[in-house]
Amino acid sequence: MARIIAVGRIKERYLQEGIAEYAKRISAFDNIGFVEIKDSGLEEEGERILKAAGDDYVVALAVGGKELSSEEFAAFVKKYSDKKISYVIGGPEGLSEKALERADYTLSLSRMTFTHEMARFFLVEQIYRGHMINAKRKYHK
Amino acid sequence: MARIIAVGRIKERYLQEGIAEYAKRISAFDNIGFVEIKDSGLEEEGERILKAAGDDYVVALAVGGKELSSEEFAAFVKKYSDKKISYVIGGPEGLSEKALERADYTLSLSRMTFTHEMARFFLVEQIYRGHMINAKRKYHK
Repeated sequence: MARIIAVGRIKERYLQEGIAEYAKRISAFDNIGFVEIKDSGLEEEGERILKAAGDDYVVALAVGGKELSSEEFAAFVKKYSDKKISYVIGGPEGLSEKALERADYTLSLSRMTFTHEMARFFLVEQIYRGHMINAKRKYHK
Repeated sequence: MARIIAVGRIKERYLQEGIAEYAKRISAFDNIGFVEIKDSGLEEEGERILKAAGDDYVVALAVGGKELSSEEFAAFVKKYSDKKISYVIGGPEGLSEKALERADYTLSLSRMTFTHEMARFFLVEQIYRGHMINAKRKYHK
């Protein structure tokens, strides 16, 4: 069971559609859930995120986190696929210190910064890609 | 004048929309053009790409290229903004040796692999972000 806990709503329709598409594809491999945290300032967002994550294995997406190749990330997806895992994405201000400290792992998708909305899209694509790699199924580049 | 020379068509409507949105935004700063190369096998695609690129400054997007932060990429965008620059994205098989050899610069957007269609979307977002950074204008994360 994987969950994506993220601050704020996805405003762009094309990103909503892209995320929905990959969520549907992921569901063939694992349960995937989404929790949207209200945009409410860094500290309160952090509190809400931690409450939502409970005792899940928490992966924070943040600049300065570890960069993995898709193959390395696939091994990661495999390792935690029978556990409760929460991927946590902050809002425009990022994640509070407290949320970052609570995280079991900190992941960076790229050295480049992109919007937190795009980060959700990239992440679902990589989770799907990870499942496809683990299942040794062909998936285009 | 920046051009994105890429192999194959964008099939997903949501990616078409995302790319169009950023192309529109970029056009406030610089001319941006798109050239779609027919999916025709690695070698022929490479030939067509090189023909389309002419004597532009050529940036190949490829795994193993240099990873830049958005700020570093913004400096790059600035440096080549009054020149003719072509960003080149291969198809599912990547780029031919010849195309890679011709490139003046090789850029990697992430250690992760994603679809070549998504690469086009990421790239336009980063070009736009680069212009916004150079113009010292606020743009969300």
